[in-house]
Amino acid sequence: MAKILTSKNENYSQWYNDLVIKADLAENSSVRGCMVIKPYGYAIWEKMQSVLDKMFKDTGHSNAYFPLFIPKSFLSREADHVEGFAKECAVVTHYRLKNSPDGRGIVVDETAKLEEELVIRPTSETIIWNTYKNWIQSYRDLPLLINQWANVVRWEMRTRLFLRTAEFLWQEGHTAHATKEEAIEETLKMLDVYSVFARDWMAMPVIKGTKTETERFAGAVDTYSIEALMQDGKALQSGTSHFLGQNFAKAFDVKFLDKQGKLEYVWATSWGVSTRLMGALVMAHSDDSGLVLPPKLAPLQVVIIPIYKKREELEVIATRAGDIRQQLSAAGITVKFDDRDTYKPGWKFNEYELKGVPVRLALGPRDIENGTVEVVRRDTLEKRSFPAGNIVETVKNLLDEIQDNIYRKAFDFREKNTTRANSYQEFRDLIENNPGFVLAHWDGTSETEEKITADTRATIRCIPLDGEKEKGKCMVTGKPSAQRVVFAKAY
Amino acid sequence: MAKILTSKNENYSQWYNDLVIKADLAENSSVRGCMVIKPYGYAIWEKMQSVLDKMFKDTGHSNAYFPLFIPKSFLSREADHVEGFAKECAVVTHYRLKNSPDGRGIVVDETAKLEEELVIRPTSETIIWNTYKNWIQSYRDLPLLINQWANVVRWEMRTRLFLRTAEFLWQEGHTAHATKEEAIEETLKMLDVYSVFARDWMAMPVIKGTKTETERFAGAVDTYSIEALMQDGKALQSGTSHFLGQNFAKAFDVKFLDKQGKLEYVWATSWGVSTRLMGALVMAHSDDSGLVLPPKLAPLQVVIIPIYKKREELEVIATRAGDIRQQLSAAGITVKFDDRDTYKPGWKFNEYELKGVPVRLALGPRDIENGTVEVVRRDTLEKRSFPAGNIVETVKNLLDEIQDNIYRKAFDFREKNTTRANSYQEFRDLIENNPGFVLAHWDGTSETEEKITADTRATIRCIPLDGEKEKGKCMVTGKPSAQRVVFAKAY
Repeated sequence: MAKILTSKNENYSQWYNDLVIKADLAENSSVRGCMVIKPYGYAIWEKMQSVLDKMFKDTGHSNAYFPLFIPKSFLSREADHVEGFAKECAVVTHYRLKNSPDGRGIVVDETAKLEEELVIRPTSETIIWNTYKNWIQSYRDLPLLINQWANVVRWEMRTRLFLRTAEFLWQEGHTAHATKEEAIEETLKMLDVYSVFARDWMAMPVIKGTKTETERFAGAVDTYSIEALMQDGKALQSGTSHFLGQNFAKAFDVKFLDKQGKLEYVWATSWGVSTRLMGALVMAHSDDSGLVLPPKLAPLQVVIIPIYKKREELEVIATRAGDIRQQLSAAGITVKFDDRDTYKPGWKFNEYELKGVPVRLALGPRDIENGTVEVVRRDTLEKRSFPAGNIVETVKNLLDEIQDNIYRKAFDFREKNTTRANSYQEFRDLIENNPGFVLAHWDGTSETEEKITADTRATIRCIPLDGEKEKGKCMVTGKPSAQRVVFAKAY
Repeated sequence: MAKILTSKNENYSQWYNDLVIKADLAENSSVRGCMVIKPYGYAIWEKMQSVLDKMFKDTGHSNAYFPLFIPKSFLSREADHVEGFAKECAVVTHYRLKNSPDGRGIVVDETAKLEEELVIRPTSETIIWNTYKNWIQSYRDLPLLINQWANVVRWEMRTRLFLRTAEFLWQEGHTAHATKEEAIEETLKMLDVYSVFARDWMAMPVIKGTKTETERFAGAVDTYSIEALMQDGKALQSGTSHFLGQNFAKAFDVKFLDKQGKLEYVWATSWGVSTRLMGALVMAHSDDSGLVLPPKLAPLQVVIIPIYKKREELEVIATRAGDIRQQLSAAGITVKFDDRDTYKPGWKFNEYELKGVPVRLALGPRDIENGTVEVVRRDTLEKRSFPAGNIVETVKNLLDEIQDNIYRKAFDFREKNTTRANSYQEFRDLIENNPGFVLAHWDGTSETEEKITADTRATIRCIPLDGEKEKGKCMVTGKPSAQRVVFAKAY
């Protein structure tokens, strides 16, 4: 077989790019930093959306839609927020084009200048809280639990398909609460939703934790994230949930009458995951043959490929394949019979391996004779023959097994690549030579954090919420530390 | 009851605005011309999306996502296209903001000027055909059947919620074909999908037809539309499907090798419906009490309201209501039991009438005694008592009946308000005094069309595809006409 992809070990970054493009997930567009999400990639994103959307609705949220544009002045209402987002904004200054006076193409019509520039939303806290002001008067209007599926734009200088693009798709939840406790509870509840989604659907273990001040969302009191470990030992922040305190309520003057008739500022949260999850999914499980998709998110779960020499053989195989397809389909499994005669079986095998289809069935004349089906599972590429009579149960079990197996593989990989450093020297060695999560003690100051990052390019991914809280001393300053935090180089 | 809405007959336009806002569908945002779609309105849009999305997939289409931004030069590649869209574009010229030198707020960073301005997509033909260029080499790559759900921006000067907004949500299908015939077939197939959706889901009859040259999509060879009649006698174009010929293939140089090995330009279609359908839905059926929603698109189909004086009564009612709710829910009906004690039953009745919930059940102590339920259908406001034992069948039948009834009402209204003019004088009288569709003969020229519009403000909505093709003479010029065309004043 011709090698389609750069090998993962040879050049991980190139492997990733090759894979995203060759598996037809996405490609770069003619617009700097913006991607085209191709049908196969978008089908995976749609599956993610539909699962997440149901999880949001089951936890009481409704969807709504707010404007793409944010008046420039809104952005500067919250002091930290503007610092975080102003530098990477796409700015709309005009609302008309006209024919060029020299007759060549079109130019901006300078007479159609906006009085106030509009920014393409990099995130929607400001426009939404400006709207909530009119929706919230009394405690009866709370909690307000809203989510939005939208495109956002952050003018990143260095972009990578899915991982960091100027425009990306995401969901952003924006909730309003009567009390601080309730808002914190919501923040953590949605962090949990993300971590369950990552584990049960993406087959990707994550660490839940608090971000340090340096890495906090601009405008948040506390930012929480889920952090996943990719196969090259780098961390990927895969979702964030922010407790915003009363910062945006104060910036946009959103008050409510509480049960005692007292006027109070509203408490807020926001939380989001984006098409970045597509990058995480690709990097968490795939190999040198292509994508490995968790069966629960695979747009196509099973493909049936006929192996034949003569036309008559195909007819018999097609009948059997049609029967199998119908049975699998009735069991809720997405399945395709690929009987194209323009491609050879070997080509098709490679193609579906590249695309990460979890289960491949092959049917040849001998299978028809013996009443068997050749079954190949994508995760291990292991090949076995099974009785055709039982195929639905076989495939169902196999899909479950693959889902479990790739989770376990990812989990074991993370365990193997999570180390503990007890001195700064040990830390630097580990970061340099053992890419992965390094658990170490830190004194809680931004100064120490910055020094470590400057020395090693590793960052604090999060202060984990779960697990043991072992006290110790900062590996750099020796000052007391309440628990180990998670360091890694990161995307 | 306090009148919540302006009466439809008094001021139709005000009635519409009141209704959209008071029924919590949408509101104007702080950004000129952009709306906020509120959760209740968005829930209806989500239902529309999910039905349409399934219809698109059932006809072989896949979803994908293309950039929000279009390089300015792309827009001018197709000569007609640029004329149609350049005048109403939001233009991004810069990619960074900075702190104002005077320390007050933020300003555009003039050093961060884009080399080429980017336009926010008003429609995506150009960016998509620029992408298809790389996707299409041979007839084997065709047909390419892709749809995109997205936001688009057209800088309209006069906006109205849902009907005409600067930013709106829509889907845009963009397909590529090997032959002209296949592309035309696709154009008409999708027009059919829209008309079936309007009829079977929105309960809204539409006329399918061809647009005149004047009203054609900028860049199309032929534009088809579905046209609906609103209750004020004005037409609303509710969806369009365009046969684009080879215009965009030529503009973006998209050729394919056909089966004979000859290099040919690709044939194209595009088609779309938008959140404008929300406006159509509201105007097609609603009344002075509020929304009337077709049961198939209503986010909430049934509400149960307890009528009680004493706390003990509520307990008994709640048990019965819980039982009914559970039965209806199991039958796939969306149902809510509204037992809030902060509002009186009368207030709730008004509220759910305003929101257009198709069926309202009320349960009082006497109903408990008699084993009955009071049932009110929203379309006629008719009240009847039914045995509680049978409630699932009763409600199911009623939902079907309402869906049928509001379609029939809309259909009858359209029949009653469709007239035929046999002279220009008669035509002018009808347009002036009998708002609705007027069928009349026209000579097929833009000059005559413009004269009629200048005289009467009516436009040719479409040249109908179905129905009799009665020959005649143009009411203005006396020149021959192959069939009557549909005139109306329009949104």
